[in-house]
Amino acid sequence: MSMDVRAAVAFEAGKPLEIETVQLEGPREGEVLVEIKATGLCHTDKYTLSGADPEGLFPAILGHEGAGIVVEVGPGVRHLKPGDHVIPLYTPECRECKSCLSRKTNLCTAIRSTQGKGLMPDGTSRFSFKGQPIHHYMGCSTFANYTVLPEIALAKIREDAPFDKVCYIGCGVTTGLGAVLFTAKVEAGSTVAVFGLGGIGLNVIQGAKMVGADRIIGIDINPEREAIARQFGMTDFVNPKDLGPNGDLVGYLIELTDGGADYTFECVGNPTLMRQALECAHRGWGVSTIIGVAGAGQEISTRPFQLVTGRRWIGSAFGGARGRTDVPKIVDWYMDHKINIDDLITHKLPLEKINEGFDMMTRGESIRTVVEY
Amino acid sequence: MSMDVRAAVAFEAGKPLEIETVQLEGPREGEVLVEIKATGLCHTDKYTLSGADPEGLFPAILGHEGAGIVVEVGPGVRHLKPGDHVIPLYTPECRECKSCLSRKTNLCTAIRSTQGKGLMPDGTSRFSFKGQPIHHYMGCSTFANYTVLPEIALAKIREDAPFDKVCYIGCGVTTGLGAVLFTAKVEAGSTVAVFGLGGIGLNVIQGAKMVGADRIIGIDINPEREAIARQFGMTDFVNPKDLGPNGDLVGYLIELTDGGADYTFECVGNPTLMRQALECAHRGWGVSTIIGVAGAGQEISTRPFQLVTGRRWIGSAFGGARGRTDVPKIVDWYMDHKINIDDLITHKLPLEKINEGFDMMTRGESIRTVVEY
Repeated sequence: MSMDVRAAVAFEAGKPLEIETVQLEGPREGEVLVEIKATGLCHTDKYTLSGADPEGLFPAILGHEGAGIVVEVGPGVRHLKPGDHVIPLYTPECRECKSCLSRKTNLCTAIRSTQGKGLMPDGTSRFSFKGQPIHHYMGCSTFANYTVLPEIALAKIREDAPFDKVCYIGCGVTTGLGAVLFTAKVEAGSTVAVFGLGGIGLNVIQGAKMVGADRIIGIDINPEREAIARQFGMTDFVNPKDLGPNGDLVGYLIELTDGGADYTFECVGNPTLMRQALECAHRGWGVSTIIGVAGAGQEISTRPFQLVTGRRWIGSAFGGARGRTDVPKIVDWYMDHKINIDDLITHKLPLEKINEGFDMMTRGESIRTVVEY
Repeated sequence: MSMDVRAAVAFEAGKPLEIETVQLEGPREGEVLVEIKATGLCHTDKYTLSGADPEGLFPAILGHEGAGIVVEVGPGVRHLKPGDHVIPLYTPECRECKSCLSRKTNLCTAIRSTQGKGLMPDGTSRFSFKGQPIHHYMGCSTFANYTVLPEIALAKIREDAPFDKVCYIGCGVTTGLGAVLFTAKVEAGSTVAVFGLGGIGLNVIQGAKMVGADRIIGIDINPEREAIARQFGMTDFVNPKDLGPNGDLVGYLIELTDGGADYTFECVGNPTLMRQALECAHRGWGVSTIIGVAGAGQEISTRPFQLVTGRRWIGSAFGGARGRTDVPKIVDWYMDHKINIDDLITHKLPLEKINEGFDMMTRGESIRTVVEY
């Protein structure tokens, strides 16, 4: 049994997506068929599409930041039924693997190897085009109006939450907010420095505000980001360009914060900024969290003295959030107005115009673009 | 008022120490005159003496791992009196500075700037030779049978503890043990990997055993360290040389530990080992602690992906121990036979033979050499 679905297909690295009708097989054991109602466009999709991602596979149906409704469940599915509202999880939560049981990480390993190969856990794909299989992407493939996922890769959410907003919780919101709450565990009264005021950085800012940080310093070379960052809770804006060509950003930030920030976050994916973020963390206790994804082969460096004198260098993936446990909670926070998503979604497009969304991303014009089916 | 004291003086970088009678002034406001009864020889003394330490100052009286008796206290000293037994602290504990009050670090900053200049907090030296001032070293200068320290740089210890053993708590024991207990906070049941089985590494091992680690893997290219490391609690020994010239130590350790160690410790000061120690820590939660001091200008590197997938890179100075609070506790542990120091002190020398102690260190013959006055 297979059905026709409408999808933006990445046939080749470096080429625009193509809108096609592809075939989708129904859910097998432990799997769920989901109608995707909305999906965000993320830098990671763009990175893979560009061909720069050495693990990128083609042809594929990209997209990993969606929200939708369960249409059909396969045999053995215990926690979901048709009609449930869900958010796909590129980081699943099986609650049974060594990682889930460790209680120390959100990085469930139950289906990691097949997911990395663009396949479902049984080692096959549900998507095909003209009889040829198409790869799944990050276990989600939300650039199609229907997709199939393992049950452990779906967070059940409340039914009154709007798909075109909470889809963003499938990646960006949770990544930024979670890094503050679940990974770094910022406390009230802290001083926080945020490198990069894109979607992730703005969500870090609202996370820091949510937990009561006293001072939230945003760092970006784009002065146009100052206004919205202040709206989200930023108290100080630093544009490195204002320090001049030989400006010492780390020294400036250490002085501004009387010794360094308690918590710093790198939200760009630039190893130079990662080093600066570490080194402007406070001697003795400053924690620097890498969120941004660096290019293939890039490395971070510092003098070990920076760590020996008490700075801590850590990283966060999917905000340290456990998908099935924490994502529904974040949806509640949105519905309760504890966090703001609406003002971060700057553009909405139909699937046919998805490439325009990526073009706006390239030009830095959008914070988040959402495709609604 | 000044007195004659017997000291091993470092007149010049790269030259042996010279045994001389030097002059020591009495304690000023907040200062304490201590008769040093024993001192350990540490790699840090050797590093500074070699001239490789860019912050090394000469002439100086080195030594920072001592134990002794209070002889006289200056005005305003509140917590110590003549006759008290003490361990000098190169990391003081004022309990009043931003660092001490943070409750997050042991790196008291009360006297950091003058200590780094080889001076007492009032900006002068108490030592002189033929009328010329001699620098203090790490605020301690235990290579003299009398020295002067600020009150905040002395831990008061019980009087039945033998000086020739507990002096080692002034640096090596606390650095290794504390990194496990106070910095990394290893829990019972953990798997621990220790890079380098010198004095620090062996103290890391006994710390890991003390807190109930299940598996303690020691890594060293010197097979002669296996026996004593096993005596201290090591369960597995890995000699990287046994893996052959193209051996993949990280891969080997990840396999040996079924995914990586929960906690790893670098106890050598080698950036290559620091990277290996990080990368063999378990995905998702492994914590790698740098204890060793790297050479001037050396840097550590890794792919940020290592951190984003949950490894944490941290460092430890003086084992994260608060000197006046934790050092007396460690002395109690020694007296209660919870830790073993005796078997780590392999050599004992009179001050006149101190250079022989450093020669043995160079040849890797000693674990700890103690000079008794």
